[in-house]
Amino acid sequence: MKLRLAMIGGGQGAFIGAIHRLAAALDGLYELTAGAFSSDAEKSRATGVLLGLPTDRVYSTYQELIAQEKQRPAAERVQVIAIVTPNYLHFEPARQALENGFHVILDKPMTFSLAEARQLQQIAAASGKKLLLTHTYTGYPMVKEARQLVASGALGALRKVYVEYPQGWLSSFAEGTDNKQAAWRTDPARSGVAGAMGDIGTHAFNLLEYVSGLQVAKLCADINIVVAGRQLDDDGAVLLKLSNGASAVLTATQIAAGEENNVRIRVYGEKGGLEWQQVDANTLQVKWLDKPVEIWRAGTGYVGSYARHNTRTPAGHPEGYLEAFANLYRNFALSLQAELSGQTASPEALDYPGLEEGVRGMAFIENVIASGQSDKKWTDFTV
Amino acid sequence: MKLRLAMIGGGQGAFIGAIHRLAAALDGLYELTAGAFSSDAEKSRATGVLLGLPTDRVYSTYQELIAQEKQRPAAERVQVIAIVTPNYLHFEPARQALENGFHVILDKPMTFSLAEARQLQQIAAASGKKLLLTHTYTGYPMVKEARQLVASGALGALRKVYVEYPQGWLSSFAEGTDNKQAAWRTDPARSGVAGAMGDIGTHAFNLLEYVSGLQVAKLCADINIVVAGRQLDDDGAVLLKLSNGASAVLTATQIAAGEENNVRIRVYGEKGGLEWQQVDANTLQVKWLDKPVEIWRAGTGYVGSYARHNTRTPAGHPEGYLEAFANLYRNFALSLQAELSGQTASPEALDYPGLEEGVRGMAFIENVIASGQSDKKWTDFTV
Amino acid sequence: MKLRLAMIGGGQGAFIGAIHRLAAALDGLYELTAGAFSSDAEKSRATGVLLGLPTDRVYSTYQELIAQEKQRPAAERVQVIAIVTPNYLHFEPARQALENGFHVILDKPMTFSLAEARQLQQIAAASGKKLLLTHTYTGYPMVKEARQLVASGALGALRKVYVEYPQGWLSSFAEGTDNKQAAWRTDPARSGVAGAMGDIGTHAFNLLEYVSGLQVAKLCADINIVVAGRQLDDDGAVLLKLSNGASAVLTATQIAAGEENNVRIRVYGEKGGLEWQQVDANTLQVKWLDKPVEIWRAGTGYVGSYARHNTRTPAGHPEGYLEAFANLYRNFALSLQAELSGQTASPEALDYPGLEEGVRGMAFIENVIASGQSDKKWTDFTV
Amino acid sequence: MKLRLAMIGGGQGAFIGAIHRLAAALDGLYELTAGAFSSDAEKSRATGVLLGLPTDRVYSTYQELIAQEKQRPAAERVQVIAIVTPNYLHFEPARQALENGFHVILDKPMTFSLAEARQLQQIAAASGKKLLLTHTYTGYPMVKEARQLVASGALGALRKVYVEYPQGWLSSFAEGTDNKQAAWRTDPARSGVAGAMGDIGTHAFNLLEYVSGLQVAKLCADINIVVAGRQLDDDGAVLLKLSNGASAVLTATQIAAGEENNVRIRVYGEKGGLEWQQVDANTLQVKWLDKPVEIWRAGTGYVGSYARHNTRTPAGHPEGYLEAFANLYRNFALSLQAELSGQTASPEALDYPGLEEGVRGMAFIENVIASGQSDKKWTDFTV
Repeated sequence: MKLRLAMIGGGQGAFIGAIHRLAAALDGLYELTAGAFSSDAEKSRATGVLLGLPTDRVYSTYQELIAQEKQRPAAERVQVIAIVTPNYLHFEPARQALENGFHVILDKPMTFSLAEARQLQQIAAASGKKLLLTHTYTGYPMVKEARQLVASGALGALRKVYVEYPQGWLSSFAEGTDNKQAAWRTDPARSGVAGAMGDIGTHAFNLLEYVSGLQVAKLCADINIVVAGRQLDDDGAVLLKLSNGASAVLTATQIAAGEENNVRIRVYGEKGGLEWQQVDANTLQVKWLDKPVEIWRAGTGYVGSYARHNTRTPAGHPEGYLEAFANLYRNFALSLQAELSGQTASPEALDYPGLEEGVRGMAFIENVIASGQSDKKWTDFTV
Repeated sequence: MKLRLAMIGGGQGAFIGAIHRLAAALDGLYELTAGAFSSDAEKSRATGVLLGLPTDRVYSTYQELIAQEKQRPAAERVQVIAIVTPNYLHFEPARQALENGFHVILDKPMTFSLAEARQLQQIAAASGKKLLLTHTYTGYPMVKEARQLVASGALGALRKVYVEYPQGWLSSFAEGTDNKQAAWRTDPARSGVAGAMGDIGTHAFNLLEYVSGLQVAKLCADINIVVAGRQLDDDGAVLLKLSNGASAVLTATQIAAGEENNVRIRVYGEKGGLEWQQVDANTLQVKWLDKPVEIWRAGTGYVGSYARHNTRTPAGHPEGYLEAFANLYRNFALSLQAELSGQTASPEALDYPGLEEGVRGMAFIENVIASGQSDKKWTDFTV
Repeated sequence: MKLRLAMIGGGQGAFIGAIHRLAAALDGLYELTAGAFSSDAEKSRATGVLLGLPTDRVYSTYQELIAQEKQRPAAERVQVIAIVTPNYLHFEPARQALENGFHVILDKPMTFSLAEARQLQQIAAASGKKLLLTHTYTGYPMVKEARQLVASGALGALRKVYVEYPQGWLSSFAEGTDNKQAAWRTDPARSGVAGAMGDIGTHAFNLLEYVSGLQVAKLCADINIVVAGRQLDDDGAVLLKLSNGASAVLTATQIAAGEENNVRIRVYGEKGGLEWQQVDANTLQVKWLDKPVEIWRAGTGYVGSYARHNTRTPAGHPEGYLEAFANLYRNFALSLQAELSGQTASPEALDYPGLEEGVRGMAFIENVIASGQSDKKWTDFTV
Repeated sequence: MKLRLAMIGGGQGAFIGAIHRLAAALDGLYELTAGAFSSDAEKSRATGVLLGLPTDRVYSTYQELIAQEKQRPAAERVQVIAIVTPNYLHFEPARQALENGFHVILDKPMTFSLAEARQLQQIAAASGKKLLLTHTYTGYPMVKEARQLVASGALGALRKVYVEYPQGWLSSFAEGTDNKQAAWRTDPARSGVAGAMGDIGTHAFNLLEYVSGLQVAKLCADINIVVAGRQLDDDGAVLLKLSNGASAVLTATQIAAGEENNVRIRVYGEKGGLEWQQVDANTLQVKWLDKPVEIWRAGTGYVGSYARHNTRTPAGHPEGYLEAFANLYRNFALSLQAELSGQTASPEALDYPGLEEGVRGMAFIENVIASGQSDKKWTDFTV
């Protein structure tokens, strides 16, 4: 049985709402059943029509959605609520959803502030409901392979990590145009204390901790507002110390003119290294001392259980961003279905980002911005 | 409203059936409503359960499916039937589906023989129903961009085309193992007169004619059975003359050990050239005399209407094989919906492979195999 | 002691003469000592001045050069003569050089006709002098690695070879401008019976036979003159049968607008495959059934003796075309020095293209042009 | 006339001495005439024999070389002395060479300490002799193209620079083996205050300032000794502020297991960006807002005067590390020859790294190590 899904946010013109819908649809594990797609009731209704929803499942506000869905019979009411609003509108819908018995899918970063994130973590724990945080990049099969390979010890102890996330789309003052994406992401009232660091720096941070299996312990950040008039950071670079003593460098920028979205991570241990980048997402480069670099590919027979579980096609049929996103939805669904049927989900299905990653991501935002403002070189990473 | 879809074939263990289902699901334009997934009634039923279909919509044979769905009320009965069986089981289900008022989605190559293909073309014309043939590669946005750029005349008259499709998965006698894919694809009784040329050579052929906007006029083929004991060709190379006098080379092989599935096309005109390959599917290389090569990317603002229409995400979010496949399903659905609502579909939506491509593909198979067996150098391409 | 080198041809404005001089200089094994750089005495003299040669070692004709150098004392006279003239001026200077006791370095293709090539082979044998034919591409370390790997049997018996040489520089009627390179290369009186097939097709042919260790047994060619007004072929594609029964495809074109010079070879055996291309010359891709592709790199510790011998720098310091060319000069010098000192040169030093390759290259030219003009499908490769 | 060249250092087993000799030989502008190849007189002699030098031009010490060459007649004595010893042996030979009337070619980094560098700058100025510092990477044609393009303003004001130099060869305690390269480079007594930062960090720094046309104004460094027992840094990452207010990130490491030597720089301005990496040295990626990335290639007709001047072959004939190195030698020779003949060298010939770059490189070393040891976040870059 498909899981009944509601969506908060994601009206026409939004970017990430459409992505969530595609991701939810791909594997046929969810049925989009209800929505409050916009704070503008008319817009919400129009989106619902477009998506073919019955009018009584399209709501004017998220409060209404939660309240009314809760009233419906169990066999009919939505089970999962996806929240795809700007950051300042994450906490409250998520809180209400959890407290009213719904599982939650939440776009990153988890909340507007670290304090909210910690609070949400407690609320979720108390509710017994699950939360998926959509850090897309850790949904890629070859990112999972990277993590599994590092965890296997094949590379020896890790010594160095480079992670980068270059974009160019905020090279000019886009928030001064009718670019809605630019508008809210550069607005402290809607985005939070960080711009680029919250929007894409958190992805890089999550990728780093996921692949390395290590945690950031200290950081030293150079945080910049490059474009005149902008209110939040659009560029940054961070030196990091990891929990095992290794060092790392994280860069994230939205003013690298001509760059699209090429997230990249490189990890080096005593015996070898790994490199993955989104532009060639089905490949993991595995590097060794004194041996040829190996090109590990998704869909092959030699990859590990996590990569295999998160691939739908044989080698040579490229899967991309939507499939990575869909992997998050799929694993969340498999975990919930296992729970519903009283079974234990596989470790592969349970491997999706959630509350812990969300809290650490918010901690990253606050720590990195604080470090950027500080004259002190090293700041302890505190949660 | 979603289009109600039935599937013939695609039981557990099949490859392409699952791909069709993912492609149908992605954009939420189809609802898988019924199926006859296997000639083994029990297997068909089991697949139906797995897919969450009501038991009365899961049939033991395709005949039963067509007959019983036809009985259902219009508002309930399936509208489109996807046929994903081996080649020898294409014609008859397709014929019955069309003649009984269903639109058809058919996996390539269209039929078992050219004669069947020509017949099906007439049947379809008489039925007034539509047929989509799933030549995946022409569903990629940057392949569409390539076609649009060639058609614009920007490259001048075309002079040379290279198209290649290397695979390695039949390097050993896989049909002697329990590999079901290998078994039917190398079996003349199920595959037809060609092996590799039918399975992947037709894709290369379709790509060539689609991108160039030209037709093959003559050919000279070297067709080989490389692996001992195999009954059908597993390797071939073809010299071609195109309708404008240009020449081309087409290679397709399944014994290139270590190759995955890297379809590639290069086209050269008087003023410049194009290169596209599946392994880097979101990129089209555009080459010019005396100017830098340009890297055109899917999802950007500068691509044409066809590429734009067939992309779901902004530049830098790789889309892959499933999205290309889904583009076929999506365009077919948009075309059918336009028809249902009495509107005219856009040229971009109408741009999907169908009967004409199917007949030419079958002609390719028969011509190329005949040429391979002939001592004559050039064979006219006859349909 | 450096070998004393004379050059015939290579006056100002020539392309390949300068390349030969750079290649001769790199390793300090030759001293350019004399020259007849042009049939125009004044131009020859001017080039000599530019190169810092004493005036009495700069000659007006190659006949003069050979005659006068022969008169000089052994310790002073040149030992090797490099002939870098257009094809029609290869045989006679080479003949005279060999017959008068000089070793010869000859640019490819060896002669104007196959008959001349066979004659030169006999003359050389009778003279006891050595001949180097400068097929650059087999001088690359990773091409040598490819050959060594194939010869080792690691890939199993070879089944398929693809070799291609695309250029775009003759896309327009360049011979109608002041482009001297285009003028002679498209002129039957100076180039011979072939244009592109002689100029670059022979390189592709040599690469194919060198790497595979096999010989071409049959061929079927499509040879075209694409640019209006041109007298010799500027494009071609060839189906081939090799001595072990494997098949191959060779393409060479000079009208692929936007292409530079990206020679590429792919070889597939029962167990794996290889791919090398000039644009990434320090890399050899090694492909396996069911294992990751390996990126073998020049200058590493794991490559074989031939690659190692032909590399000057550690891994990561790219070597290119001039180094490959210099490898030919270097190996020829090492072989001659071994001979002079009564020692045996290493197999690696002796591995340079010579008379045998030259005769086969001329046979390729004549066979491929004949096949292009024939209605017969397969032509036996005759020497 | 060739310039007469002597070499100090570069005996058998040395790495960089051989590179210098190849670079000097390639263009035929230098004649290696004398040498003091080792502090071990016997080794020096043996190297001289191998190189074919007359015994009276092979010296036991550099002092002897300088003293005795000075005694020779002007027409015979060496004109340029290349010093290719470890860092601690740069200053004194260079000082003596300059003060005794010889031009100097010096391997980087310029000296053992910044104080020495400043002193050498004064000595050189007083001597009227020239000094070439062999920062190889700025000898690449497409690096010069990058600088010229930035200087043209085509990218607008620069905003961000990333430069990286990853190596893996010191991943283990190589200085504990018989690896002489590792031994001196990790030894404070021979290398100076820095290991990786001096060896390769200075290259990255030079590349950054050369391409950007900007100077480093402040830095914040994380400098690490990763391999147990090592005495000098083998890894580091640096946040930088440039003279125009832009920010940058520089990383250099020798413990990135599996990496060869892939220096890479990316530069972003208001309107576009550039990317160059040594592994694909003949390519410069030029990126624009809202236009396709362009692949600019060495040897083409559209590159600028600096790239053209520093290329020997047409597009598609890859040139590499040795050619880049040779460009330094060639430009130095052309500049000296112009001076000797009373002419003005072209700006392209005069574009080679020298004293200014050497002093700034030594300042980088001392500043970056100081910053690494400091708790202060930002250190002013002082010279």
